Amino acid sequence: MDWKPDKSLQIPVYIQISNYIETRILNGEYPSGSSLPSERALAQELDVNRSTIVAAYDQLRSLGLVNRIKGFGTVVTLAATVDGDIKRVPNWDEYVKGGFLHLNNPMTRQIHKSVGSDKPYINFAIGELSADLFPAVLMQKAHNQLDMSQYLGYEHIQGNLRLRESIANHLQTYRNLSSTASSLLVTSGAQQALQLIVQCLLKPGDSVAIEDPSYSYSLPIFHSAGLRTYLLPVEQDGIDPEQIVSLYKQHRIKMVFVNPIYQNPTGATLTSERMKILLEISTKYGIAIVEDDPYSLTSYDQTPVSVLKSMDQDGSVLYVSSLSKIISSGLRIGWIAGPQSVIHRLTDAKQQMDFGQSNYSQWIAAQLLSSAELDNHLMRLRIGLERKLHLTINALRAELGDDVQFDAPRGGIHLWCKLEGEWDEQQLFNQAIENGVVIAPGSTLGSKSGCVRLTFSKVDDPLIRPGIQKFAEAYRAVKHRR
Amino acid sequence: MDWKPDKSLQIPVYIQISNYIETRILNGEYPSGSSLPSERALAQELDVNRSTIVAAYDQLRSLGLVNRIKGFGTVVTLAATVDGDIKRVPNWDEYVKGGFLHLNNPMTRQIHKSVGSDKPYINFAIGELSADLFPAVLMQKAHNQLDMSQYLGYEHIQGNLRLRESIANHLQTYRNLSSTASSLLVTSGAQQALQLIVQCLLKPGDSVAIEDPSYSYSLPIFHSAGLRTYLLPVEQDGIDPEQIVSLYKQHRIKMVFVNPIYQNPTGATLTSERMKILLEISTKYGIAIVEDDPYSLTSYDQTPVSVLKSMDQDGSVLYVSSLSKIISSGLRIGWIAGPQSVIHRLTDAKQQMDFGQSNYSQWIAAQLLSSAELDNHLMRLRIGLERKLHLTINALRAELGDDVQFDAPRGGIHLWCKLEGEWDEQQLFNQAIENGVVIAPGSTLGSKSGCVRLTFSKVDDPLIRPGIQKFAEAYRAVKHRR
Repeated sequence: MDWKPDKSLQIPVYIQISNYIETRILNGEYPSGSSLPSERALAQELDVNRSTIVAAYDQLRSLGLVNRIKGFGTVVTLAATVDGDIKRVPNWDEYVKGGFLHLNNPMTRQIHKSVGSDKPYINFAIGELSADLFPAVLMQKAHNQLDMSQYLGYEHIQGNLRLRESIANHLQTYRNLSSTASSLLVTSGAQQALQLIVQCLLKPGDSVAIEDPSYSYSLPIFHSAGLRTYLLPVEQDGIDPEQIVSLYKQHRIKMVFVNPIYQNPTGATLTSERMKILLEISTKYGIAIVEDDPYSLTSYDQTPVSVLKSMDQDGSVLYVSSLSKIISSGLRIGWIAGPQSVIHRLTDAKQQMDFGQSNYSQWIAAQLLSSAELDNHLMRLRIGLERKLHLTINALRAELGDDVQFDAPRGGIHLWCKLEGEWDEQQLFNQAIENGVVIAPGSTLGSKSGCVRLTFSKVDDPLIRPGIQKFAEAYRAVKHRR
Repeated sequence: MDWKPDKSLQIPVYIQISNYIETRILNGEYPSGSSLPSERALAQELDVNRSTIVAAYDQLRSLGLVNRIKGFGTVVTLAATVDGDIKRVPNWDEYVKGGFLHLNNPMTRQIHKSVGSDKPYINFAIGELSADLFPAVLMQKAHNQLDMSQYLGYEHIQGNLRLRESIANHLQTYRNLSSTASSLLVTSGAQQALQLIVQCLLKPGDSVAIEDPSYSYSLPIFHSAGLRTYLLPVEQDGIDPEQIVSLYKQHRIKMVFVNPIYQNPTGATLTSERMKILLEISTKYGIAIVEDDPYSLTSYDQTPVSVLKSMDQDGSVLYVSSLSKIISSGLRIGWIAGPQSVIHRLTDAKQQMDFGQSNYSQWIAAQLLSSAELDNHLMRLRIGLERKLHLTINALRAELGDDVQFDAPRGGIHLWCKLEGEWDEQQLFNQAIENGVVIAPGSTLGSKSGCVRLTFSKVDDPLIRPGIQKFAEAYRAVKHRR
C-alpha cells in the first residue's frame, strides 16, 4: 500500500487503518469474497505492531465488512447486496456498547426487571412503599381537588411555583430547614437530583467520597462521569468525618455524598457531633457536601431528627429529598435545595434533559404537601414501617436463627443483614428469584460481600413471613454449595 | 523548595504545583497575609514555564486561598478563621463552571426564562400549544376516568404497559408504523429521547450529522458528549441525502439526526424520493438514523404524510415522537421506537437518570391515546394551527411588507423568516423582549444568521397581530443601528 497511518493524529492508528481499508472495500478495490493481507504482512508493511492490525480487523468485523474464515484469513463479507452494492445495516450491538452512561451492574439490572414484571415476586429489593402504606384517600382527595381547566403547557423548569412554596413550608415545618422557592429545584426523585449534580458540578478526574456501603455505590453515574470515588466506611454512628481530611490531603476530594439519617442500606444515623465535625471540615477545606435525605421523616419513635442541612450556616450542603419514600415513588417528585448559582446551573441542565417535570405530578404533590392530613399519614406510615420491620425481624429469627445478624434501625425502610458461612452472592440472588423473592445482594451497595439488604417497606404485611421463608430456603440451598 | 513536579504523572503539572502549595498553606507554612514567591522566581525554581505557575496561582485563587494584591504579588488570603484555622466554604462558582453537560447558549437560556415568568410576554419562541388549542374537555374526561385506587409505585421503567400498547396502536393507525410495546420506551418528551440516544449510543470523538438549521443545532448535548457535528443544509425538499455519503467518506458519520416532516424551524418536508435515498444510504454504509417526528399529525390539508420509519425495513431508524405538540407539553410524554437492544440499553439509562416517568401522566396519556375523541381533537388542532399561521402571515405582511421573507409551511408550528437589511441578533432579541414579545433568533437554531423563528402555535389568536406589531417595532428600531 502507498498509504501509511499518521501517528501524529489524534485518531488512533487502528482506526485510521480500519477507515482506510473500509474506503477501499467500498470503492470495490477488495470485492466481496476477497482476502485481506495477513495480519503479519500488513503490520510489516505499515510499520505497526501486529496487535494494531488485529484491532483494525476487529473493527472492520464489527462493522460487518469482513469475516474470519478458517484457511482464508480475513475475508470481505459476502453480504446481501443492493443493486450490486454491499448492504450494511447499522450495527446496533456496537452502538449500545458505547456511550457516556455506563450500564447498571447485572444484578441491579435484574432487580429493576422485577419492577413491573408479570411474575408476582415478593420484592425485598425495591425502595418504595407497599400498597398497604399508600395514602389512597389522601391521594384521591388531592386528585379530586385538581382544577383541570388549568392550561397544561410547560411549567417553569425549576418547578411549579406553588409546589416549590409548599416544599419550602414543608422543609421549615418538618425539618427545621429554611429555604425559599427560588433556591429549590423540583426533580424526578432524588435519583435525578444526584444525576444532575454529578453531570453539572464535577469534571472527569475529580475525586469524590461516598459511603461504603451506600446507595451511591450502586450508581454507575460516578464512573460514567470519569470521577475517582473513595470510600468512607459507615459505622454505627455513620461515617467518621476525619477520614475525609486524610482523603482530601491525598486526593483533593471535591464533594462528599452522604445519607446521614437511617442510611441506605445500614440504617445508621450520623450523630450530631459527627455532623458538626463534618460541616467544619467542609468549610475548612472547601469541600461540597451532598446530603441525600429520603428517610428523616420515618423515625419510628416520632422524635424529630435534625438533618445536616439545618445546621449548615455557610451554604456548603446541597440538600436532596423526595416524596418517594413517604408518599409515592410513582409521583416522581424530588427536590434539591442549595445556593442560587447551583440551582440555576442545574435548572438549565434539567431543561436539556427532560424539559421539566410533568404538571400533573407537581400539582398533586403541591396538594399533598399542603394538606392538613399529611401529618396523620406520616404517623400511620411510621407505625406501619415499624410493624413491617418487626415482622421481618421475627421472621428472620424464626427462619435463620443465628445465621443472620443485623442492627435493627430506628427509622427508614431497610434492614442490612450479614449472613453466616460461605455462600455465593450470585447463586443466592438467582435461587431467591427462582423461589419467587427478590433481594439486593450486598455487593451492589458496597465493597464487601457477605451481606444482603432487605427492604421491608415494599412487602405487604401478610407476605413478609412467606417471603423471608423463601429467602431462607434459598440461603440454605446455596450455603456451602460452592 | 525541595519539591519538584513529576511530569510523568497524569495529573497536570499546574495542578501538582497548586496542590503542593495548598498543602503548605494548610500546614501553616505560608500563614495568612504572607506572599508567595513571584511567578518568575517559582517558574525558574521548579523548572517549568511561567504560564504554568500563572495557572497554578489561578487555581489557588479559585480555591479562595490566595489573592493578587498590587505591590505585594500573590498573597495568602486573610480569610475568616475558625479556631485560628482558615475557613473556606465550597466555591460554588467554580463548581458550576465544570461539569459534563454544557450550558444552553445565553439566548436560549433567556427564552427558557420566559417560560413560567410572571411577565405576560407574547411568546413566539416556545414550541408548544396555546390555551385555545388545548383539549380541555378531552383532558377532563381522561382525568375523571382515572381509577385512583390504583397503587402508585414505580412503574415499569420502560413505561406503563397500557400506555405502550396505546402508543403502538396509535402509531399503526396514524403513521402506518408497526411496533410492539416491547420495542417502545416512554420518555420525558422527545427532548429526553435525544438525550438518552446521545449519552448511550455515541462515544466522544464520534461524528454525527445534523440539519442546518434545526432544533438539534440548539442542543448542547452534542458538544457536551464530545461529538463532532457536521451540518446538512435544509433545502425546500429537506436535506440532500447524498451529502451524507461525502460526510461519511471524510468523517465516518455514525448517526444522522433528522426531522423530516414540517421541520423545526424551516417547515420543510423531506420528499419521499429523498427518504428512500436516505434509507438506502443508511443501510449501505451502516449509518444509524434518528427520526424526530413531533409534527407529522399536524398537516393542514389533512392528507396523511409518510414518516421515514414507516419505510424502514432494516431497523436503521430510531423513531422519536411525543404528545407535546399535539396534546400537551406539560404531560411530558414522548417515546422512542427502535431495535430491542437499543430499547434495553436506553431503559437502563432512564432508570439511572430519573427512575421512569410519572404514573399520572402515563395513565392520562393512555386514556387520551385510546379515546375515540382524539380524532376530532386532531382535526380541530390542524384547523387551529393553520388559522394561527394565516394570522401570523397576514400580520407580518401588514407590518413588515417586503422586509420579511418566508416559505409558508403546510403543517407544523413554526415559521422561519428571513429579515432584510443589516441588524444585530442580540439587539433584536433584547428589543423584542423589552417590547413584550419573545422570538427565537436564527443563530440559536443554525449556523447562518439573518433569520428568526416565529412559533405561532403558542400565541392565542387575538394576540398574534399585537405580538407581530411589537416584533416589527423591535426590528425597525434595531435595523441599521449597528
